[in-house]
Amino acid sequence: MAEFFNVLPPGEALELLLGRLPERPAVAVCVADTARALGRVLAVEIRATESLPSFPRATMDGYSVRASDTYGASDGLPAWFTLVGEVPMGRGPDMSLGVGEAAVAYTGGMLAGNADAVVMVEQTQAVDEHTIEVVRPVAPGQNVAQPGEDVRVGESVLPAGHVIRPQDIGGLLALGIERVKVAERPRVGILSMGDEVVHPGVTPGPGQVRDINTYTVAGQVAAAGGIPELLGLVSDDYEEQLVAARQGLAKSDMLVLSAGSSVSARDRTVDIVAELGEPGPLVHGLALRPGKPAILGLCDGKPVIGLPGNPVSAMVVSSLVVRPTVYRLMGCARPPSPSERAAVLAQDIPSAAGREDYVPVRLVNGENGTEEAHPVWGKSGFIFTLVRADGLVRVPADAGGIYAGETVQVREL
Amino acid sequence: MAEFFNVLPPGEALELLLGRLPERPAVAVCVADTARALGRVLAVEIRATESLPSFPRATMDGYSVRASDTYGASDGLPAWFTLVGEVPMGRGPDMSLGVGEAAVAYTGGMLAGNADAVVMVEQTQAVDEHTIEVVRPVAPGQNVAQPGEDVRVGESVLPAGHVIRPQDIGGLLALGIERVKVAERPRVGILSMGDEVVHPGVTPGPGQVRDINTYTVAGQVAAAGGIPELLGLVSDDYEEQLVAARQGLAKSDMLVLSAGSSVSARDRTVDIVAELGEPGPLVHGLALRPGKPAILGLCDGKPVIGLPGNPVSAMVVSSLVVRPTVYRLMGCARPPSPSERAAVLAQDIPSAAGREDYVPVRLVNGENGTEEAHPVWGKSGFIFTLVRADGLVRVPADAGGIYAGETVQVREL
Repeated sequence: MAEFFNVLPPGEALELLLGRLPERPAVAVCVADTARALGRVLAVEIRATESLPSFPRATMDGYSVRASDTYGASDGLPAWFTLVGEVPMGRGPDMSLGVGEAAVAYTGGMLAGNADAVVMVEQTQAVDEHTIEVVRPVAPGQNVAQPGEDVRVGESVLPAGHVIRPQDIGGLLALGIERVKVAERPRVGILSMGDEVVHPGVTPGPGQVRDINTYTVAGQVAAAGGIPELLGLVSDDYEEQLVAARQGLAKSDMLVLSAGSSVSARDRTVDIVAELGEPGPLVHGLALRPGKPAILGLCDGKPVIGLPGNPVSAMVVSSLVVRPTVYRLMGCARPPSPSERAAVLAQDIPSAAGREDYVPVRLVNGENGTEEAHPVWGKSGFIFTLVRADGLVRVPADAGGIYAGETVQVREL
Repeated sequence: MAEFFNVLPPGEALELLLGRLPERPAVAVCVADTARALGRVLAVEIRATESLPSFPRATMDGYSVRASDTYGASDGLPAWFTLVGEVPMGRGPDMSLGVGEAAVAYTGGMLAGNADAVVMVEQTQAVDEHTIEVVRPVAPGQNVAQPGEDVRVGESVLPAGHVIRPQDIGGLLALGIERVKVAERPRVGILSMGDEVVHPGVTPGPGQVRDINTYTVAGQVAAAGGIPELLGLVSDDYEEQLVAARQGLAKSDMLVLSAGSSVSARDRTVDIVAELGEPGPLVHGLALRPGKPAILGLCDGKPVIGLPGNPVSAMVVSSLVVRPTVYRLMGCARPPSPSERAAVLAQDIPSAAGREDYVPVRLVNGENGTEEAHPVWGKSGFIFTLVRADGLVRVPADAGGIYAGETVQVREL
């Protein structure tokens, strides 16, 4: 492999990869209980199976009436109504209103037969046990939610590829949809490479470091709804790496390789991606700091991402590339935004134009209740730079930096 | 119960409740595998058990040297070095440098004995197999990460009450901390009340509606790290409600009651909270729309929250009150921010001063790559208002509204 690859902006590189993947879920479809489907991705569009509300509902406590009987009512000339009973919650009416008749109505309950409006209790006065005065007219439909006003039968309510939120669970169950077709969670193989990397349970010898990237990426994959498959560690031996990567890819829907940090180690990773399947590497190098030495590939239909070895770069690339790819495998074209928070930048961030920068920042309560974003400077190999940070500030490629005092969005990893 | 309660701003009401809870986790402490502890809350402060890096690490590919041997080197007058070998990745050096000697160094690897700097390979030229020219001087420590530069032994790295993120897992494992003490997930009992409410699996009869609030709140509780305990449905019978609430509270760390939507149903809920334990209701009514008829109580040390019956109000109150309370039970005083996203408001939002409003909005791609927030107007009882929305815009209590064109933060529920 001695091909020449252009360094691409991360967004463009991601589009290049995702553009080669099918729109529909790459993983199998399964059936999930709606009540337990939080965070799962819908495999099919959902249409309303009925209209809601299913009956005209009172939206106020008061009296259901025929609106025309209230016309002209005022404080000086109230309309008199005879009470003919109440419609209890959760039941249909057992009466029908004649002229000048009213029935007690509760918020969320049904109206009496013939009634077409509800008079708020605050706009009435009790005359005796069976009689009330109404001092304001109501229009037909007033204080009543009409059938289908929330959702109409047949209406599309959620598209395929949608990530299910708490309110979606509520909406689906309101329609009686107790089970939904969702994408299986994709299996994401994660392989850490490098002679210097040891398992976190091992006390490192001279020149050795504990594996970090397997676990940070696994956390990011799990947060996106994927199933991290920890493939373990391999040395810098090319054949060993290739065998492990091939086996890992075979049992996964996607493969993430955490490369060694030296230039030669990175070069070997791109060779591996080329050998794993067609077309192999699509992008080698991102216009991104940290995270330039990343590889995006597609091997016989499965995404393969090569991450830089250094832990900060690995997390940034994983956030920008692995995360949306996991969602796409589930058929989700527009992943939920990473959590963001607005803050006022406390120090200038200089940056080279032509490259997107992600700078770790710490949020500090400033004056007037504003939050300030303080850059956490540190060599990009230092994981505690990110542990000390509350998020990242993005410096766009066309900006030479961001000045202190500007409002920035601080995004989680 | 005929006490008078002031309507409080939601933030103040929450502080009143949380101020009565212990700072330390209310739930038991358990031990979790660090690699699987995403989203769990640390029960103790974590201090670094060792310094990282644990050895001087090269941060560039090149040659480790004694910096003083490079002083004065330039393109015109390069310094010559004799190559005495390499220090492979993951191993200690088996050589010590004399005057004018250099050893191959790899990014992330150790330096030769006696070396105190690394010359980047780009600032050298190979003369022959055993000799290089160095054309730029390096200072001691240049291109070298020093021991303890990332984190120092004994340094506090994460406070008790911290919610574990992917980078924290990385940092902990980098230190060899494979297990951590975390708070148990609190059990949050959820009881839905009302004669009109039926299980989602049932076809509603006249005047009946399917239960929504149990499941939306359960989703919000689960997203915050709690364990929702679905206590089912009870009618509007007071004794039945009290028994179910008492049993639910006994087996939970916190109780959420979803009240019926009529005024009398709400009044009964506050009576129940009063009977469940001391001191009972702390707040009855929030200066909030939707969500005014909420109850915050503390019953023999356990938080009890009464939610308005209507599904939109219930979710808003749950997001503002239940979510942070779940975190506090785990000992987390500063919960992770709900996910937010900046957008430009597309329509004026009018609002009454003196009350916080939360308005559902839908995000739409606008011109110039900006996102626009379009209000989703709808009666507050309509769950599909939230299904159609991408989040909520908060109108502060001291504002009479927000004008179109202003940048707003759109927060998830």
